[in-house]
Amino acid sequence: MKSFVIKGDIAFNETREKIKTLENGYLVCVNGICKGAYKKLPEEYKNLEIRDFSGQLIVPGMTDLHVHAPQYTFRGIGMDLELLDWLNQHTFPEEANYSNLEYAKKAYSYFTYDLKRSFSTRAVIFATMHTDATVELMDQLEDTGVISYVGRVNMDRNGGVNLEEESAEVSLQETGKWLDRVKGRYARTFPILTPRFIPSCSDELMQGIGKLSKEQNLRIQSHLSENPSEVAWVKELVPQSTCYANAYEIFDTMGNENCPTIMAHCVYSDEKEMDILKKHGAYIAHCSDSNMNLTSGIAPIRKFMDAGIHVGIGTDVAAGSSMNMLKAILNAIQASKMYYRLVDQSVKPLTFEESFYLATEGGGSYFGQVGSFKEGYEFDALVLDDSKMYSMRDLTVRERLERTCYNDADVVIREKYVQGENTFHRE
Amino acid sequence: MKSFVIKGDIAFNETREKIKTLENGYLVCVNGICKGAYKKLPEEYKNLEIRDFSGQLIVPGMTDLHVHAPQYTFRGIGMDLELLDWLNQHTFPEEANYSNLEYAKKAYSYFTYDLKRSFSTRAVIFATMHTDATVELMDQLEDTGVISYVGRVNMDRNGGVNLEEESAEVSLQETGKWLDRVKGRYARTFPILTPRFIPSCSDELMQGIGKLSKEQNLRIQSHLSENPSEVAWVKELVPQSTCYANAYEIFDTMGNENCPTIMAHCVYSDEKEMDILKKHGAYIAHCSDSNMNLTSGIAPIRKFMDAGIHVGIGTDVAAGSSMNMLKAILNAIQASKMYYRLVDQSVKPLTFEESFYLATEGGGSYFGQVGSFKEGYEFDALVLDDSKMYSMRDLTVRERLERTCYNDADVVIREKYVQGENTFHRE
Repeated sequence: MKSFVIKGDIAFNETREKIKTLENGYLVCVNGICKGAYKKLPEEYKNLEIRDFSGQLIVPGMTDLHVHAPQYTFRGIGMDLELLDWLNQHTFPEEANYSNLEYAKKAYSYFTYDLKRSFSTRAVIFATMHTDATVELMDQLEDTGVISYVGRVNMDRNGGVNLEEESAEVSLQETGKWLDRVKGRYARTFPILTPRFIPSCSDELMQGIGKLSKEQNLRIQSHLSENPSEVAWVKELVPQSTCYANAYEIFDTMGNENCPTIMAHCVYSDEKEMDILKKHGAYIAHCSDSNMNLTSGIAPIRKFMDAGIHVGIGTDVAAGSSMNMLKAILNAIQASKMYYRLVDQSVKPLTFEESFYLATEGGGSYFGQVGSFKEGYEFDALVLDDSKMYSMRDLTVRERLERTCYNDADVVIREKYVQGENTFHRE
Repeated sequence: MKSFVIKGDIAFNETREKIKTLENGYLVCVNGICKGAYKKLPEEYKNLEIRDFSGQLIVPGMTDLHVHAPQYTFRGIGMDLELLDWLNQHTFPEEANYSNLEYAKKAYSYFTYDLKRSFSTRAVIFATMHTDATVELMDQLEDTGVISYVGRVNMDRNGGVNLEEESAEVSLQETGKWLDRVKGRYARTFPILTPRFIPSCSDELMQGIGKLSKEQNLRIQSHLSENPSEVAWVKELVPQSTCYANAYEIFDTMGNENCPTIMAHCVYSDEKEMDILKKHGAYIAHCSDSNMNLTSGIAPIRKFMDAGIHVGIGTDVAAGSSMNMLKAILNAIQASKMYYRLVDQSVKPLTFEESFYLATEGGGSYFGQVGSFKEGYEFDALVLDDSKMYSMRDLTVRERLERTCYNDADVVIREKYVQGENTFHRE
């Protein structure tokens, strides 16, 4: 069932800089693993079922490396605020509603419905501080077919009305209960420790999370250096830190290459912070739509890539206004062009190829061999119908691919495969 | 037939800074003119037909102040290039095809089909240097219901293979023929003189266009200060000019308050250039999507507004990848936030209200009293169905409006009125 061939116009990154395309090519899946893309189907696969998507684009599934599920239903509202005001006026009051399980059930159903139909085959997700609601979200996610990490959020300070845990102890206890409840419960949905960010977590809580991560080999996700006011605040809160990343390091929450931490944003990460991220094998979730909306700034992604730091793309709903990864690819390119033009002309803009790489293999590598059609990779694939976008001449597969990212609203997902399983289909 | 009332959730700018909203309000149209928006329908309009769009948003029609019709079918391709390379590699070869009338007919049918279904009720459009194709475009535009200015492009130098007029004289002769052919031909479609930009037009041609504009009271549109290489080139081409805008001024093509010139971009317009734009009552067409795509930079729109210069928004297809004005509103906000954050923190970002204003009344004023529901304005209105964007709580009309601009793909245009005429309807 998980061994078959799909036929169509295939595109994927061979390297960070180069996209390989195969017009009318064959993509082979054996037991959920990609066995390569071919112009001519090799003899050994000739007895496999061929699913014909001729004329449609076939691209790797995408990884949304940073998205807040409970914020989904208020995206695109209050966008003239900066981070800390936006959190206090919009986000925290909304997240407080998730203490009500019925509310959470309904709200998360909107999120999971759309995620299933999105370009993402993998996602790393923030829930809220509510255990029941987080388990509900994970239950729903398991049914989407998307493979995800999900975090029950830790926050024992500065959360505002009805969105603050009583103490570090309570926060850690609840985290333990949550981990017990979800242990072994899912095939596709995994827990990830999620201290919201330093301003939301006391030293004691951060230390507890660092310890828990080590003991149980659990990954961590959080936010880093998003906004100037936030960065200044962290320096006050952890005065002994040499930088924001070092504050996480002090609490032993920066992870390592085998158990990598994801840090969203990194807009203000300088050389010192880059060294720390690199040393720990951390992932940067680049969220340029969010960073523009909240007037945060632009992260120098090329610098990170050149330094050998892992980078992927996050939509960061609801500071990003959409879960659409094609839009996120475009935003990352535009942001990098403005960084080049307005900040530093020694930092070249991201090419289309590079941004596409970040959305596929860049973030996908957080899940293993994911996000490419190279042999041995897990078979995450999207069949995209771009026929609505007429042209006056024949376009190359590469041109069609670029065009879909610049006009995402005109692309239709026909099939979505995750690890070789057809998780979504649209006529 | 052009006198009626529409009912729904009304939103429009009362001032540049403030959006007035009326939930379940009444918007009155008498003979194509807006007679105001009311919470309770005034007695004098009670015998007019009421069209009920309860629960849907009603907003002013939008003005796309700068868009290239012949570039529509290759949008979203070659976007990693900067302006001059992009023109030479993609735009000029494509525009050369419009010497073939059958080609133009087909290609323009894609443009006009989508324009009719877009958020724009008014548009100012570049065609190509081909007279027959330009008349074809205008014929098609007349049937869309959209009110537009359309320019046959003048370019007698630096156009490349098959896209350059023989001489200034030929260019002006052809312009004269074109003007004769379209004179009195349309109710909604008007000619505008369109020297492509200084690098494409010899001094003699520019002078001829300036003269023609004065003699026949014809408006002019062109490009100004888009890209650093272009700005430097213009300085070489017109060495006696004090700045790029002054080069246009020297040739008498900057217009006046009664016959205003539109200048697209103005990314690099400094105080001197702003003085010239202001003095002539010119309009700036702000094209932030394009300016990000071609790595041009960000125009300091607040400075222009504060100086009292007219500003509207252009989608600038195909350097902008879409004709969607809601997307353009969002892009303008994001660009202004990055200008504030990365360039000059004394230039505050555009608020949502201000960007919405630019897309409606800001650009609309180029057409007269257009782009608002204030009494006496021409009745250009859109009925927008935003019901696909669920929410967990009741949203204000203002919140729904912001959300539609941040998630344009989820909004459906149900009705489009231009001067009181229902030009488009979707079930």
